[in-house]
Amino acid sequence: MPEIRQNIATKDWVIIATERARRPEDFVQKEQKRRDLPAHSPTCPFCPGNEHMTPPEVFRIPAPGGGWRVRVAPNKFAALVPGDFEALAVQDGLKHFVPGVGVHEVIVENPAHNVTIPFLPDDHVRDLLLTYRTRYRQIEDSTKLEQVVIFKNHGPAAGTSLEHPHSQLIATPIVPPNIRHRVEEAMRYYDEHRECVYCRMLRDELADGSRIVQETAHHVAFIPYAAMSPFHLWILPRQHTAAFRDISDEEMADVAGMLKGVLGKLHVGLDDPDFNLAIRSAPGESKHLRYFHWYISIVPRVTKMAGFEIGSGIFINTSLPERSAEFLRGQKAPAG
Amino acid sequence: MPEIRQNIATKDWVIIATERARRPEDFVQKEQKRRDLPAHSPTCPFCPGNEHMTPPEVFRIPAPGGGWRVRVAPNKFAALVPGDFEALAVQDGLKHFVPGVGVHEVIVENPAHNVTIPFLPDDHVRDLLLTYRTRYRQIEDSTKLEQVVIFKNHGPAAGTSLEHPHSQLIATPIVPPNIRHRVEEAMRYYDEHRECVYCRMLRDELADGSRIVQETAHHVAFIPYAAMSPFHLWILPRQHTAAFRDISDEEMADVAGMLKGVLGKLHVGLDDPDFNLAIRSAPGESKHLRYFHWYISIVPRVTKMAGFEIGSGIFINTSLPERSAEFLRGQKAPAG
Repeated sequence: MPEIRQNIATKDWVIIATERARRPEDFVQKEQKRRDLPAHSPTCPFCPGNEHMTPPEVFRIPAPGGGWRVRVAPNKFAALVPGDFEALAVQDGLKHFVPGVGVHEVIVENPAHNVTIPFLPDDHVRDLLLTYRTRYRQIEDSTKLEQVVIFKNHGPAAGTSLEHPHSQLIATPIVPPNIRHRVEEAMRYYDEHRECVYCRMLRDELADGSRIVQETAHHVAFIPYAAMSPFHLWILPRQHTAAFRDISDEEMADVAGMLKGVLGKLHVGLDDPDFNLAIRSAPGESKHLRYFHWYISIVPRVTKMAGFEIGSGIFINTSLPERSAEFLRGQKAPAG
Repeated sequence: MPEIRQNIATKDWVIIATERARRPEDFVQKEQKRRDLPAHSPTCPFCPGNEHMTPPEVFRIPAPGGGWRVRVAPNKFAALVPGDFEALAVQDGLKHFVPGVGVHEVIVENPAHNVTIPFLPDDHVRDLLLTYRTRYRQIEDSTKLEQVVIFKNHGPAAGTSLEHPHSQLIATPIVPPNIRHRVEEAMRYYDEHRECVYCRMLRDELADGSRIVQETAHHVAFIPYAAMSPFHLWILPRQHTAAFRDISDEEMADVAGMLKGVLGKLHVGLDDPDFNLAIRSAPGESKHLRYFHWYISIVPRVTKMAGFEIGSGIFINTSLPERSAEFLRGQKAPAG
């Protein structure tokens, strides 16, 4: 019998389709070409020597011997552009809009064209997370934009055609619906239970254990009970923290190791699947915000969203979260 | 300057990315293999002669000379299964679920393996819509399930590997979030304005004209002002009607012609793109329900959802709805 599971934090529903469930091995990717990439591509705007091909750099972590380890520049094909973000919204019948003002940046993760997070040294991944935190704080502190969204698209099925490993940052002049929705649901849970719903979920997932993928000193990675799609992963800090900007240096080094480990397990177990990654965070400084909890969401793009998902908003997951987690626990990430 | 547009009915936000917008012609599909399909495939469970390969048929429209024109059978790999749908939901810490009880059917649109809706005779498309309405009513009237969702996946990017043209129907024991959300927003609009927000949108779209794709006696097809993705289309009945089940015979023949025309324009203009289609409808008999309005949503899968959409819930549309609508208006659908 299939189960229609509900995520207690997001209230999203998913059908765990036991009657048509596939084995974890069935999601191993058949063909991958990324392995044959060169270490340097003369036409790649993110490779060293081609820095002039991006708009002027806004941040870098320099390499000891010259050059850079991580580099941030505005996206050349920006979805949102600099401007007067306090310009009025227009509401005229069906025409509701706000001007598309904001920040859209590319974070080049490392100089090598062909080296992804699982194969970077630990301290390099920590520098990448440090870059995330730095730009997150700088943009929040220097603009009145509502929300900084940090994300990553890996591979064509995840919506990127650029091969060089990179993350992105978009800061929006509106509260994103996914954040508003999660904050509202978390407030409602807090009203009833006087506890952060994510803290509760983490406690229950740890007690159950069957969906845990990896644990570190400060973070836990698991496939949620109501995972929307196969191998959908959440990484939560153990310590209640509402905003990503408040991550400590120690936690940053810890989550870097976690990210490297979990993406490494995906790489090895599913043969380098395309995936999206997003950091979900409360906006602003929120040290006293009791009800929200930042986390990283990783969505391997190993299945397609179809008409039922579009029509209903209910997802159909053709894998069992418990079996997928067991499969990933058994994978050994590259040493890097 | 990009615009962040909001759909006044759904309240969804979309970034119309003017800085990186592509021309309508840029979305024409490069390679299509469906054209080379045979009229009959000996291994296809939906081809005539292979009726035993599906679970027992639940409905058919017979062909005058024997055989069938349209045929409905339970999905062999059902996401939801028959059972006691009044079984209790379980709520135990993070474990919230209801048993996966419901209906999941396949609607085989016509006997030919290689004939899609734009190439069917008018009265055959009407029979397909009649099948939709018949099963929709029968399931609502004979079960206590909450919502009947009718949808279609065309092509691999839309989530189907089965070539034979077919639609699907899933009836769920929970109210789908996309329906709940739309009904709530429509109620809120009605409270404030004493008018159906979809009726208002239709009036404004008709007065503006720039996003209209096709008009018939009873229906209007347009690309919404805040279309979430390139060539995203809505087909609305002109007459306020909350539930699809209440469509009249005359309207059904009319919307069949509209569907054939609009899908024909997409086929010709974009060279047979993969797409999803879903009917959004209020549940139950709702002749006196003033605030909701059923419609057909068509989503060509010509771009990929990426990390920003997953992280924020805000879509980035790299086409201009007005230019896309102008492009489709200029396309001549096949005579069929």
